[in-house]
Amino acid sequence: MTTERSVPPTISDVAAEAGVGRSTAARTLGGYGYVSPEVRERVLAAAERIGYRTNALARSMSTGVSHTLGVIVADIANPFFGGVVRGISDASRARGFDTLVLSTHEDLAEEVAATNVLIDKRVDGIIVASAALDAASASHIEQARARGIKVVLVDRAVPGLDLDAVLIDNRAAARDAVARLIAAGHRRIGFVWGPPIEGRPRRRRDLVDGAVRNLWTDGERLQGYLDALDDEGIVFDADLVMVGAKTEEHAQVEVARMLELPDPPTALFCTENDAMTGSLRALRDAGLRVAEDISLIGFDDSSWAAVIEPPLTMIEQPTLALGAKAAEVLLAGIDGEEKGPDTATAFHTLETRLIERASVAEPPRR
Amino acid sequence: MTTERSVPPTISDVAAEAGVGRSTAARTLGGYGYVSPEVRERVLAAAERIGYRTNALARSMSTGVSHTLGVIVADIANPFFGGVVRGISDASRARGFDTLVLSTHEDLAEEVAATNVLIDKRVDGIIVASAALDAASASHIEQARARGIKVVLVDRAVPGLDLDAVLIDNRAAARDAVARLIAAGHRRIGFVWGPPIEGRPRRRRDLVDGAVRNLWTDGERLQGYLDALDDEGIVFDADLVMVGAKTEEHAQVEVARMLELPDPPTALFCTENDAMTGSLRALRDAGLRVAEDISLIGFDDSSWAAVIEPPLTMIEQPTLALGAKAAEVLLAGIDGEEKGPDTATAFHTLETRLIERASVAEPPRR
Repeated sequence: MTTERSVPPTISDVAAEAGVGRSTAARTLGGYGYVSPEVRERVLAAAERIGYRTNALARSMSTGVSHTLGVIVADIANPFFGGVVRGISDASRARGFDTLVLSTHEDLAEEVAATNVLIDKRVDGIIVASAALDAASASHIEQARARGIKVVLVDRAVPGLDLDAVLIDNRAAARDAVARLIAAGHRRIGFVWGPPIEGRPRRRRDLVDGAVRNLWTDGERLQGYLDALDDEGIVFDADLVMVGAKTEEHAQVEVARMLELPDPPTALFCTENDAMTGSLRALRDAGLRVAEDISLIGFDDSSWAAVIEPPLTMIEQPTLALGAKAAEVLLAGIDGEEKGPDTATAFHTLETRLIERASVAEPPRR
Repeated sequence: MTTERSVPPTISDVAAEAGVGRSTAARTLGGYGYVSPEVRERVLAAAERIGYRTNALARSMSTGVSHTLGVIVADIANPFFGGVVRGISDASRARGFDTLVLSTHEDLAEEVAATNVLIDKRVDGIIVASAALDAASASHIEQARARGIKVVLVDRAVPGLDLDAVLIDNRAAARDAVARLIAAGHRRIGFVWGPPIEGRPRRRRDLVDGAVRNLWTDGERLQGYLDALDDEGIVFDADLVMVGAKTEEHAQVEVARMLELPDPPTALFCTENDAMTGSLRALRDAGLRVAEDISLIGFDDSSWAAVIEPPLTMIEQPTLALGAKAAEVLLAGIDGEEKGPDTATAFHTLETRLIERASVAEPPRR
């Protein structure tokens, strides 16, 4: 019998000792899935008796896999990221991985700290919606990879960083939405919201640069707006792009400003929900009716948008699918690491959908 | 010099070796706050040279504090929990603690697994919006406490469990909202949504029991509705309480059913945002105007509720403050553990606010 104990005990040994099935023992010792408190106690006691190393750290040191993924998002209070995180955790859980989430408020320093926490907690992989604007500011991500932690980007690419990224095609989504407004006859289309910069640059490149420097997705959406104007030969007017703080209150101020222009917009493209609600406040203050007086398309559909009167035409982002795909790519990378190196990385782009309701109509006759 | 090295090196020793300030060394070694990658490398190299134990686990074993809190919420995709988590992480970060979040989909088995993950990751404390309905189903929480981990409940109490809980007074909030409808002259008030049960019990106790068995807050809100009816001597009618699946689609079905009653409701009290949007769909299908034909009050204010026409009267929950208070109570408990035992626990109740807009009017004359 002593010869049998000369090799370290396995999960099957623990299961036999505890009188439970192997999968129950594995769930208990792995810290995932449901095990009743009584059975858990029994399995842990059996593991202790025969000398099985139970804690997750010991497990991760012996197997190299801790069955934990880390997720770093910009703002957990934003329903978009709530959906992405839920998609990640559903897909991970189905594979027996737990998900630890940290939120950074779009602050690169907090993202660096969050990465260090996840390294310390010995996660197997990290999914990050990064605030880094280029590879030079992403050395924390390289540090995690240097420690053998797989990293996948979600929602935003980081130019210059050779990593898998799971994204929606923000530029194409914006282009399609604005093209829809142009097809309805609009030529004066406001863009809410734009770069959070001081002053109002006249050149489109300065506006795009300002947007990109703040957030990759913002730059993509502004570029898609410009693409749609270019497609139809519509002259760009910097006065129709919101600049300044990205808040509902400031969106209201900027739309009110646009409505006072000598040639005001007949349609608005709103790139966030708070941009939309701020715009709706400005329209109400001005006594303008949606569709009849001014057309609207928003980004990121919600159940509220469908019950507004008239119901709003919105771009739907596949938040759950975005999270699920990111988890799938990450877990494939972790599996691949066990099988052997596979260095091919790619952009995985998910489709958005324009949900047509009733907020787009012809421009009013003047 | 060797005598100096006979005591373990301190953070100050590392700072001196690396040529940085003590606080920079502490941030680097503690894995919190911002440190540039270059400085981080320098500090870690210095720590290695003089034999300082750098990883968080070593730190937590030597000091007893890992500076990490765990948060377990029912559904991270619900903006309510998004706000609570943000409140927790803001308040924790201000004290140098990182926050790890797990989401359970209101599933007790997943909550048990999440608790085990946080125990394994050696967090100092856990804040949990628990799916446990009584102490008997909360042995996982007792297990965490047995390992010296402080636990604070948020959003829901667990009857029979002697723990600090940070809550809003759901019962009082519901009572006030329904009293507001009664004060406007309403006697037939629908309750959307109620217990997710089969059949339609006639007795109020069966309905309350059904709600409580699903979710503590649901039971509290239904009880508050009944309190307000009792206050004014209004006879309870089980037909005015939604039963069945808690989804937007089913809320629409149930409100449509209520509108077909011989004596239909003249007002609705909606206890969740999806209950409100489902109700608004049913009212639109029935051609009813908000306020003029039927009054509405909702739970959990959002920026959309203010831009609907007419703007909706809503109960505002202090989500950020709820999270911040939970973190404060937890961190006080962790501090207290270092100073000495303090076993007093309490319910900490935060106030809600009824934001009066324009969705409440007198009932229409019949």
